[in-house]
Amino acid sequence: MLVGRVVGNVWATKKSPTLDGMRMLLVAPFTTGDKGSDEVLVAGDPIGAGIGETVLVAFGRAARTVLGSQDVGWQVAVVGIVDAIQLADGGTFELADDGTRIPV
Amino acid sequence: MLVGRVVGNVWATKKSPTLDGMRMLLVAPFTTGDKGSDEVLVAGDPIGAGIGETVLVAFGRAARTVLGSQDVGWQVAVVGIVDAIQLADGGTFELADDGTRIPV
Amino acid sequence: MLVGRVVGNVWATKKSPTLDGMRMLLVAPFTTGDKGSDEVLVAGDPIGAGIGETVLVAFGRAARTVLGSQDVGWQVAVVGIVDAIQLADGGTFELADDGTRIPV
Amino acid sequence: MLVGRVVGNVWATKKSPTLDGMRMLLVAPFTTGDKGSDEVLVAGDPIGAGIGETVLVAFGRAARTVLGSQDVGWQVAVVGIVDAIQLADGGTFELADDGTRIPV
Amino acid sequence: MLVGRVVGNVWATKKSPTLDGMRMLLVAPFTTGDKGSDEVLVAGDPIGAGIGETVLVAFGRAARTVLGSQDVGWQVAVVGIVDAIQLADGGTFELADDGTRIPV
Repeated sequence: MLVGRVVGNVWATKKSPTLDGMRMLLVAPFTTGDKGSDEVLVAGDPIGAGIGETVLVAFGRAARTVLGSQDVGWQVAVVGIVDAIQLADGGTFELADDGTRIPV
Repeated sequence: MLVGRVVGNVWATKKSPTLDGMRMLLVAPFTTGDKGSDEVLVAGDPIGAGIGETVLVAFGRAARTVLGSQDVGWQVAVVGIVDAIQLADGGTFELADDGTRIPV
Repeated sequence: MLVGRVVGNVWATKKSPTLDGMRMLLVAPFTTGDKGSDEVLVAGDPIGAGIGETVLVAFGRAARTVLGSQDVGWQVAVVGIVDAIQLADGGTFELADDGTRIPV
Repeated sequence: MLVGRVVGNVWATKKSPTLDGMRMLLVAPFTTGDKGSDEVLVAGDPIGAGIGETVLVAFGRAARTVLGSQDVGWQVAVVGIVDAIQLADGGTFELADDGTRIPV
Repeated sequence: MLVGRVVGNVWATKKSPTLDGMRMLLVAPFTTGDKGSDEVLVAGDPIGAGIGETVLVAFGRAARTVLGSQDVGWQVAVVGIVDAIQLADGGTFELADDGTRIPV
């Protein structure tokens, strides 16, 4: 379970029918270092997040519980949209569309 | 769940019978950095992808749901073929056979 | 399963209802090297840990067992608060709020 | 699920009885980079692979399906012996005992 | 599933009751490189390993099978104590308490 930033969309016409009807987002994991990870994930999004938003991502059974069925080809899902992050040594902030921190 | 590029095939004659009848592909994860990962995965392919194609890959129960049975030795599967990727800071593109980005 | 330090909080208003009523903590994995990992996790916290505390974190079914239900969007949870760590080559210590080691 | 090279054996007398009767192999993941990973795995081997052979490795439920029971302490298993690997940009080859590529 | 060296103990008074009665060990994964990983794991130990010993570690369902129940907060467990490791290119050895290799 991690926080990430939505950095893109993925389109696939030829796919398992169990993936139909749900947008696929590319998500870059948030790190406390200088930049996010470049090992991007694909997540199904039942919540309605857009590019640039900060999201909460879960894996496996937890992801499918939020998607509503265990019998699908989804293994990762957006399970929430993050309003703000508070770091012990970095104040409270939102992430801007480009990933920079905006104090709140 | 991730996007990857099919970079090869794997052949195995001596294997679990539960792996019979399905092609095994080598997949290199897509990253937003300069190059893909060199930590390649093996995925069963029920969708019909070929070398050089960009695919969607899932793990565990999700992979086996798309393969049609939970009682097999497969743990990773191709669950879709990617038409295009849109990055917030990189336009919309396909991946060429060699992994370079082709604007669409 | 790992030891980590609570380095922050995450707030999300729009989320799966199965995540309601539980605080979300950002946790930085403890390493035996010079610094913790900057690949932070998000964990649900049914134990009551605060920022700066050292916690025990579990994943998947184990996490949800401690949370009380398998039918939730949680995949990671705080399952204990660490009193002390003893390293074979580093004595016995607590971790201070900033991650430095305090001998006990 | 990955391709790896068998680089060693592990012996353990004191262990869970559910691990009895199966050889334990050390497997180094194959990468498309200059060398394999040094983060070696331990896998149960129901197929009969030897040191230097290239194997297909699966995790979790898939591994235990091939081993024949879900109620064992095994989490990783050899599920096949690889005859040849074809890379889009590297020809078709076997891996020699020392990991170098032998064209076939 | 991996081989690791027990490098420490963890104590936690406030924790899930499902974790009671089992020692928690810090385990550093064995690698074939110059040193072990500094990304240490926490494992429940039903086998009776001590600091400096080399152990076999499993995750998830396999770990809990060895612990005796799927309904616990444990996700990682020691499932065996390693007597010796044989590497194709490094002889047969035990690991000393400090991780150096002792030929056997």
